[in-house]
Amino acid sequence: MKYSPGLARLVEALRLLPGVGPKSAQRMAFHLLERNREGGRALARALEEAVANVVHCRRCRMLTEGELCEICAAPRRDATALCIVESPADVVAVEQSGGYGGRYFVLMGHLSPLDGIGPEQLGFDRLEALLDEGEIREVILATNPTVEGEATAHYLGEALRARGLAVSRIARGLPVGGELASAPYTVAEHPLATLAIVAGLGFVIGALWKMGGSRRESVYDGLLARLSDLQRQAGRHWQ
Amino acid sequence: MKYSPGLARLVEALRLLPGVGPKSAQRMAFHLLERNREGGRALARALEEAVANVVHCRRCRMLTEGELCEICAAPRRDATALCIVESPADVVAVEQSGGYGGRYFVLMGHLSPLDGIGPEQLGFDRLEALLDEGEIREVILATNPTVEGEATAHYLGEALRARGLAVSRIARGLPVGGELASAPYTVAEHPLATLAIVAGLGFVIGALWKMGGSRRESVYDGLLARLSDLQRQAGRHWQ
Repeated sequence: MKYSPGLARLVEALRLLPGVGPKSAQRMAFHLLERNREGGRALARALEEAVANVVHCRRCRMLTEGELCEICAAPRRDATALCIVESPADVVAVEQSGGYGGRYFVLMGHLSPLDGIGPEQLGFDRLEALLDEGEIREVILATNPTVEGEATAHYLGEALRARGLAVSRIARGLPVGGELASAPYTVAEHPLATLAIVAGLGFVIGALWKMGGSRRESVYDGLLARLSDLQRQAGRHWQ
Repeated sequence: MKYSPGLARLVEALRLLPGVGPKSAQRMAFHLLERNREGGRALARALEEAVANVVHCRRCRMLTEGELCEICAAPRRDATALCIVESPADVVAVEQSGGYGGRYFVLMGHLSPLDGIGPEQLGFDRLEALLDEGEIREVILATNPTVEGEATAHYLGEALRARGLAVSRIARGLPVGGELASAPYTVAEHPLATLAIVAGLGFVIGALWKMGGSRRESVYDGLLARLSDLQRQAGRHWQ
């Protein structure tokens, strides 16, 4: 079946959305065209405007339209507390928990040598500039409890403690309200040894990062390769 | 968590897509803005163009951009065969089977008194005009094997046979390649009695539809109400 050219372009474009395969894309295209053309127009407008206007907050890198996001601009937020997360979606998740009143810093990723993501890609310079302002006293490391998230948290934790800041990590373990018997493999058989190695590597990578120069590069590359191995290995054991 | 206004509009607009809830909409919005802005722009353009340009084929009601869809315009398709389906997605499904070389007629729905959809809403007038052209000799009824699809097929079958056309219905039963033991409840315990009643009602509704006038309206309404009951009842027994 060949769709008409405009229909083919729409189905193809809808497949760019995460989690949308050819069947879903077709269903979405037909749904909008058969039943909700006004909705289709609204979606086109919203997309165009968002792509043109949404930028990263100058302070915390959250997605927003102004120079500062609503949280950074709010006068009532606690300016002494900073929660470091991997993605804008994590900011939404922490905000929805309702228990946090400070500000955020969004890394837009995690340390992941397999994907070529080191400290530079995560805006650590910008984070340091933020800390240099001197207002922040307490940092909560809310990166994901994955191999990469743990390594990122450990690296950041060492660097931040060295600055004399109070650093805490979000709690990891069984989901609150869950039962031990029904815990997934990842939680019940958490490979503590691997975790310790990851944390140690994160620390060494961090220290080397500060060292600079040619010596850094050689040792650093070796360690990143080791973390890569560990990521692969952990990928087998963890979900 | 309050998104910035443009982000909120985008998340809201993405929820108009079928099967997309608040979490998926957020994930889609963040994905496009963080990783694929060019894709976001392409989707906006494709949507705008499709909503503006895609219309129904004058002949078969398939979604297309020209006056005639590619199938109706193709000179090599068999003009004597017509396959009647419920939706544009069904045209795609039959085409993908690769075994059919005739043309289509898309009802854009099925008889469904619960939703106020009678013969008028399904373009039966247009279908009759198509048959009046005299080229079509054979009709395949490919409406879905649901209560409403069966009633629609039965109604159409009676009307088309009365015109002297060869009418066939797509085969219903166990999926080819499946096993009886793993058949779903709907197939294994198909309520034949209900099906017969539905078919009978479809026939009577069809006959009354041809009758016209005030007499039609009173009897017709009663029968549609009966089919409504049956739909509700079948909804309990069938998945």
